[in-house]
Amino acid sequence: MRLILFLLLFSALQGSGQVKVNQKRIEQRVMELAKFGNDSLGRNYRIAFSAGDIEGRAYYIELMKAVGLDVSIDFAGNIIGKRKGKDPSKNPIALGSHIDMVPDGGNYDGVVGSMGALEVMEVLKENKIITEHPLELIIFSNEEGGTIGSMAMAGVLKMDALKVVTSSGLTNYEGIKAIGGNPDSIRESSKNLGDYIAYLELHIEQGGILEQEKLQIGVVEGIVGIAHWEVTVEGFANHAGTTPMNKRQDALLAASKFIIAVNEAVNSVGGKHVGTVGKITAFPGAYNVIPGKVVTSLELRDLHSNKIDLIFKDIETRAAEISKSSNVKISFRNLNVTSRPAFMDADIMIKISTVAKQLGYSQKTMQSGAGHDAQEMAHITRAGMIFIPSVGGISHSPKEFSKPVDMANGANVLLQTILALDKEN
Amino acid sequence: MRLILFLLLFSALQGSGQVKVNQKRIEQRVMELAKFGNDSLGRNYRIAFSAGDIEGRAYYIELMKAVGLDVSIDFAGNIIGKRKGKDPSKNPIALGSHIDMVPDGGNYDGVVGSMGALEVMEVLKENKIITEHPLELIIFSNEEGGTIGSMAMAGVLKMDALKVVTSSGLTNYEGIKAIGGNPDSIRESSKNLGDYIAYLELHIEQGGILEQEKLQIGVVEGIVGIAHWEVTVEGFANHAGTTPMNKRQDALLAASKFIIAVNEAVNSVGGKHVGTVGKITAFPGAYNVIPGKVVTSLELRDLHSNKIDLIFKDIETRAAEISKSSNVKISFRNLNVTSRPAFMDADIMIKISTVAKQLGYSQKTMQSGAGHDAQEMAHITRAGMIFIPSVGGISHSPKEFSKPVDMANGANVLLQTILALDKEN
Repeated sequence: MRLILFLLLFSALQGSGQVKVNQKRIEQRVMELAKFGNDSLGRNYRIAFSAGDIEGRAYYIELMKAVGLDVSIDFAGNIIGKRKGKDPSKNPIALGSHIDMVPDGGNYDGVVGSMGALEVMEVLKENKIITEHPLELIIFSNEEGGTIGSMAMAGVLKMDALKVVTSSGLTNYEGIKAIGGNPDSIRESSKNLGDYIAYLELHIEQGGILEQEKLQIGVVEGIVGIAHWEVTVEGFANHAGTTPMNKRQDALLAASKFIIAVNEAVNSVGGKHVGTVGKITAFPGAYNVIPGKVVTSLELRDLHSNKIDLIFKDIETRAAEISKSSNVKISFRNLNVTSRPAFMDADIMIKISTVAKQLGYSQKTMQSGAGHDAQEMAHITRAGMIFIPSVGGISHSPKEFSKPVDMANGANVLLQTILALDKEN
Repeated sequence: MRLILFLLLFSALQGSGQVKVNQKRIEQRVMELAKFGNDSLGRNYRIAFSAGDIEGRAYYIELMKAVGLDVSIDFAGNIIGKRKGKDPSKNPIALGSHIDMVPDGGNYDGVVGSMGALEVMEVLKENKIITEHPLELIIFSNEEGGTIGSMAMAGVLKMDALKVVTSSGLTNYEGIKAIGGNPDSIRESSKNLGDYIAYLELHIEQGGILEQEKLQIGVVEGIVGIAHWEVTVEGFANHAGTTPMNKRQDALLAASKFIIAVNEAVNSVGGKHVGTVGKITAFPGAYNVIPGKVVTSLELRDLHSNKIDLIFKDIETRAAEISKSSNVKISFRNLNVTSRPAFMDADIMIKISTVAKQLGYSQKTMQSGAGHDAQEMAHITRAGMIFIPSVGGISHSPKEFSKPVDMANGANVLLQTILALDKEN
């Protein structure tokens, strides 16, 4: 019995390698980065291109240099830290994430992956491991504002995006300049298909599935596609005191029925898809006027585009019924911000799953409901993502939290996956 | 047969008096006033205290002077045009309305009553009729911004109201100065109970009841009370991509259920009351975030306060059910802008009704769903209101319209009611 246990343990150690990440160091660095970008109320505003973002990047670059990386900033403002491999003729393996955040956001989204990737470099250095392939640690610029840096690297950034005003108040053009990029030459920052062996990203789940099912690792099968519609409900604005109840064409009442219909349509079919109405404006928007017009939003997400199409058709049908019964007009305008689903590489998924199993972590495959730099990198290389639990499923909020042990587990999976990829390519 | 007809006609003429208003003159003056206060797009913006309001008032004052009235402006900016009676010891009968409008409003709200009252003076002058009582034609300041001028005259204006910024951009304090009032002495503009014999106001219905029932005159029984609540729905803001449908605390979805529940509660009991949700804001208000908080509005109107209380209790019960089933918190904050119902004087109602009958106009008693200067004047004198049809029930809109014949009918009722009141007091 003892012998069997010993053999199992030996086999496990061989498979996973003996090197492990330093949980304390990851935790400390996550906390350290959280200090940059607080506003006067102590809320975290490390928005891309803001002073906090610039300070946070400087802090991160110092850590990269300290671990021996050769640091540069590409034209898109992405920070790239290179580590030499044994064979300089081989293409590098890339890993990374982002350190910018949404306004009043949390300290883990992007940061766990950024500090996890840095920890991989620390462990390799401490253990004097030189990989066959060069490694590139990439911190992408303005992830939260539409994966700008990774789109540029993947060569899929539309030049119009440079004119968009970001949460920082600067346009992407101005912001990229502010962080040391060169937006005028941004096209030259794009890589070609095959320039990287693979791209790997560790990230918090941002949902509550792993925590709820008491699992340690999520093997991401893909990043959902996102479709946005602006929805306009047109009724007739009238005096709220003098218009009898049965003579109204209340656009807000009809919009309320629409919002409930969206929820019902989304829930009427099984699956991992989600649908959200997050924004609403009523015109003229006064206590004493029956709203004549409401502009609201519709977002649908799924890993499969045809599922999105199917649910949208159902929503259109329900909206037509509401239009008729409420005497309003409901129209949909498809917005061009729509992003297509991105599938992670099957071989890398299996590798992540195998590594997690060897390390003894419970796991499941899952969709990413949020967008990530990995979805852009998937255009030019095989991509893989590792999720760790988010406490309470909370994200994009100051209450965002992931346990240090989970961050370390994720970083260990990242480390061993990189080592496995390095051996097998 | 002929004799009977003659006798009926004679009796009718005796009852109504032989004097009649000039429909064409009313119509022309309504059109003339509509020219003041247009914006660059040709939309009417004769907002209280604006340049258009000031020009419109100057035009109206010229007309008052031309008909021989002794014009003054009180400390609240109300324009008062006095006409002597036979007996100077008698208190005056007041009549009037307002000429300011809501932004992008219509040309009839207030104006019909203002031009109708002026027409009464024209007819009296043309026919050399001197009433027993003095008459006072009052054009109240800033009716649309909360019956400011009439509240001041009734002595019920709270001094805080002077600090409120109005649609013109000026505070009431600044605005009253701009139109020739003296806000520092505004308290002295208030009248005492009994200073007037009565106050009469002609106005458009602003609803569609008279038109729909093919009636010519509305005898107003009272002006509804208005209660406002700010309603806050608190859920939990979360990532719209990563939060499964069954794990959401979507404040906008719950608010939609609330808006429908308000409509159902209001429609669940018979009566003339109305309830409106006109304003809504979702936080954070983005396509990709499940709303964590929604702030919306609730307005209830009825002539009887206990009906408002009853319906509000029902709404609270329904809101509590939604809170429970949707896992959100719904709270109500009663706003102090609430106005109490105002009942018109029963004797004057009967007089208006009798006069309308004598003039051969079809009629019905009705509530006013909108606020009016008459509700403030009811604090200090017996008040009465005469409604005429609004085409399509449209008001507070450039599409607001009343037919010239209806305006003339209303002015004739106003004229004859004044003459009847004059005789009997």
